[in-house]
Amino acid sequence: MKFSPLVQELIESFRCLPGVGAKTAQRMAFHLLERNRQGGAKLAETMAKAMEQVGHCQQCRNFTEQTLCDICESPRRQHAEQLCIVESPADVIAIEQTGEFQGRYFILMGHLSPIDGIGPEDLGLDLLEAQLQQGGIKEVILATNPTVEGEATAHFIAEMAKSFEVNLSRIAHGVPVGGELEYVDGNTLSHALSGRKSYQV
Amino acid sequence: MKFSPLVQELIESFRCLPGVGAKTAQRMAFHLLERNRQGGAKLAETMAKAMEQVGHCQQCRNFTEQTLCDICESPRRQHAEQLCIVESPADVIAIEQTGEFQGRYFILMGHLSPIDGIGPEDLGLDLLEAQLQQGGIKEVILATNPTVEGEATAHFIAEMAKSFEVNLSRIAHGVPVGGELEYVDGNTLSHALSGRKSYQV
Ligand SMILES: [Zn+2]
Ligand SMILES: [Zn+2]
Repeated sequence: MKFSPLVQELIESFRCLPGVGAKTAQRMAFHLLERNRQGGAKLAETMAKAMEQVGHCQQCRNFTEQTLCDICESPRRQHAEQLCIVESPADVIAIEQTGEFQGRYFILMGHLSPIDGIGPEDLGLDLLEAQLQQGGIKEVILATNPTVEGEATAHFIAEMAKSFEVNLSRIAHGVPVGGELEYVDGNTLSHALSGRKSYQV
Repeated sequence: MKFSPLVQELIESFRCLPGVGAKTAQRMAFHLLERNRQGGAKLAETMAKAMEQVGHCQQCRNFTEQTLCDICESPRRQHAEQLCIVESPADVIAIEQTGEFQGRYFILMGHLSPIDGIGPEDLGLDLLEAQLQQGGIKEVILATNPTVEGEATAHFIAEMAKSFEVNLSRIAHGVPVGGELEYVDGNTLSHALSGRKSYQV
């Protein structure tokens, strides 16, 4: 005894979403069928369109429906001498929101992860190398996450970039602004200590 | 600064799923775009089809693509004298899996909840009343959940069914089989005690 074929198929299809198990998939299907068919129809339409039309920016690899994303197309950024390398499109938004960076980005869409079979080619590092070869970039800012994989990825890119004439930098690690020392993990605190700067009054 | 329009729209559309906030919606969109476009396209297609084609069984209200669901169509069940009332399609499957019940079902698709504006008509109680009026049902088994809302709903249906010649029963509450007393909540334990049966050796 199961649900009707189409309901069963809907529940199983929901399992392709990350973190969605059998129970959650069932709850999602019932919720849409019983309470929000319009929302479900809209989601289905948008999803179908996005799967087909969203591609990667040919320069920075960010998601876009165009050949180049808005940032790469911006005349103000085209000749930028700084290239900031991040793991995810969400990181671009976070950095843009600070208003502190006017350069270009390169989005890896992940990090090196031999266990998951994610190697340099999956992160578009050949495209990155070609861009460095082309010249114009004076500083590469490694802004991958301060995790084991993020550090390994930063290290790999740094090794690759060494043969070009660019300055390499890594975003600073330390105590978050507004954070309390008491609640900061030991690893972060060591970074904050070893990366201390002279304090002028 | 936001994601590209279509990516932004996809993330927002995911919010119609229960329990999906901004961060989860973003993770779902990125996961499908980056790792599983085929799964996303399949989900979109199934969802569109289900929102349009899945309806309610005209007799028991369960989800089905047909006029009557498989259980209501089964000749063996059509003249059943027992009617089991449950809150959700998942409850039907759970009861069917026991193999203990050969009667018909009536699925409320929820429970009375004045706060959420869910009243008797939303649970199809007019349809249920018409079925009782029609005769043939000798026992109504109230199998709503043992929650405050489930009990209130059972009580409401019991009041309504009183004017018809049917026996009313409520599923037993007590200690789950295989459970340990120590870990059973007090309310369940009171039910188990007050509902005790004589023990024959
Ligand atoms: Zn771009
Ligand atoms: Zn039915």
